[in-house]
Amino acid sequence: MSAARGGAAAAPGAAQLADILSAAGPELGALLERAETRLQEVAQGHGDALATHAAGTLAAGGKRLRPVLVYVSAGDSSSDALVEAAVAIELLHMATLVHDDVLDGASLRRGRPTVFATGGRSAATATGDLLFSRAFAVLAAVGNADAVRALSDASSALAHGELMQRQDAWSADVGVDRYLERCRLKTARLFEAACRLGALLGEPGPAAATGLGAYGDRIGVAFQIFDDVLDVSGPTERTGKLRGADLLDGTVTLPLILARRLDPELARLDLRAVVGDPAAAAALCDRIAGTGALEEARAEAAGYVAAAKDELRALMLGERQLQLLELIADGVVERYA
Amino acid sequence: MSAARGGAAAAPGAAQLADILSAAGPELGALLERAETRLQEVAQGHGDALATHAAGTLAAGGKRLRPVLVYVSAGDSSSDALVEAAVAIELLHMATLVHDDVLDGASLRRGRPTVFATGGRSAATATGDLLFSRAFAVLAAVGNADAVRALSDASSALAHGELMQRQDAWSADVGVDRYLERCRLKTARLFEAACRLGALLGEPGPAAATGLGAYGDRIGVAFQIFDDVLDVSGPTERTGKLRGADLLDGTVTLPLILARRLDPELARLDLRAVVGDPAAAAALCDRIAGTGALEEARAEAAGYVAAAKDELRALMLGERQLQLLELIADGVVERYA
Repeated sequence: MSAARGGAAAAPGAAQLADILSAAGPELGALLERAETRLQEVAQGHGDALATHAAGTLAAGGKRLRPVLVYVSAGDSSSDALVEAAVAIELLHMATLVHDDVLDGASLRRGRPTVFATGGRSAATATGDLLFSRAFAVLAAVGNADAVRALSDASSALAHGELMQRQDAWSADVGVDRYLERCRLKTARLFEAACRLGALLGEPGPAAATGLGAYGDRIGVAFQIFDDVLDVSGPTERTGKLRGADLLDGTVTLPLILARRLDPELARLDLRAVVGDPAAAAALCDRIAGTGALEEARAEAAGYVAAAKDELRALMLGERQLQLLELIADGVVERYA
Repeated sequence: MSAARGGAAAAPGAAQLADILSAAGPELGALLERAETRLQEVAQGHGDALATHAAGTLAAGGKRLRPVLVYVSAGDSSSDALVEAAVAIELLHMATLVHDDVLDGASLRRGRPTVFATGGRSAATATGDLLFSRAFAVLAAVGNADAVRALSDASSALAHGELMQRQDAWSADVGVDRYLERCRLKTARLFEAACRLGALLGEPGPAAATGLGAYGDRIGVAFQIFDDVLDVSGPTERTGKLRGADLLDGTVTLPLILARRLDPELARLDLRAVVGDPAAAAALCDRIAGTGALEEARAEAAGYVAAAKDELRALMLGERQLQLLELIADGVVERYA
């Protein structure tokens, strides 16, 4: 479950993103460039150490799926307010990654040293706090209270989901409902906020904020489920991380929950048996895959993608915007398929 | 320097607060009650674990000096928006305390177990993040972009100051200017934001926000200097913590900086010599006091109090509001005097 929050598999694959960018025309690329520029600016002015850590974190990048969601949800808008919203969403996302790395004691993310690794616990905690603060500062300047509320609600959900995941670690009792609630809190609420911000500040307007937010929520859940499938299925050379990384962390995800139902021996297995043993984790991945749980989980994700598209139908969106949003929805479950 | 962020000495003494409350009349007490009610409410709705940790942290209290600053800066206003602003400021303050406790591995604060002690590192990090988020959510709902910007700027400054303090730990090279900059970032900027919010949302209005903010900044610096004096002077039975707690942490504060100038042997002393030795820390406190550095530091703090009062003169405030603000300014350096 960790990869959805910044691993190499944290966004649609490069191929899918290229499809989206190409379908969207040069405007989306230009908007993403403007967000990159702002991301480098906003970290300045709070001391050299924080600027270095924050800029390094932000430069490490990722595919900027959340800013893409802000922009595409906004239709043909390209206002500064929209760029600021995209920047705020990405800042909040990065803040949680930096804090997660502290808690995990993680030394690498996206193949680069984490702030925790280069600066230590204090620097990383402060860097995360700074990115949090900057997210709200940037969005506050836009002057739309609904937008700030969407961001802060997502932020509260992230904290809740993060804690829930840690509470559930190694548990034999996590069911599908609890897992889905966690996906919603840890991943989908930020997707929802991204789409909501795009609607609020873009062409669709406040009336479409709930509908586009619901679309974001659904693809967020699908995204997280599929990410958790990739953790089991690999291949490592595509996902950029070891198979079974979640199992090694004790994170109980949908493939394991479903496999435990299908294979009674798996249900009896204590996850702690694979701690520190990547080969055992990989073997456990094979066993999970052997139950057919991955197909079931993919079908669950596909159901959320379909639900996301359903949400779009009730909205009065232009043909081109609708097409892009559907392309993104498909993209979240077609990564490395 | 840590006490200013939540120790027993974190606010004017009980006597001074009583003076302020009595001078302010029942309205201030009623406003503080409303803030308490809201503080207990805002932590709900994000899971039982977080609610328990957050509510426990918020109930541990303190003297609510920052909410008092919001209210008194607002003059005779008593709107819901003002209460929300007071709540937001206190939430941000508490968020930083919870994160500081994680970094310090602190098990007690205000005589109660910390979230870090009862819930561990993950729960405490998530609780701090939740309190951060709620602070912005609460203030965003007020719908004043300048207010949200004031809060987020203070929040960024807190992160900056926190990191700076940790970078300066054990250092022999911290001078007065650097120390004062740290005071400003770690303490004064939040005081400034509190006063600014009171002005923005209360009677004085936006035109007085800069002036009242400057007042808050000056008393914030004075507050922190005096807090650092108390760390050296004690007495323990009044401050609620061991003398020299900052020295034991390696935190270099104004009394030590000044004493090092006055006593060449002190300048050569490696602070690490007192680590884990409260008796040695107490002896070092006596030695610092013997140089006259405490009187010098108190005079510096008094200078900031005078500067704070100067800021008020340029504003068109009512007699009663002016009197209360001056009483608070005096209160920050008269604790346990």
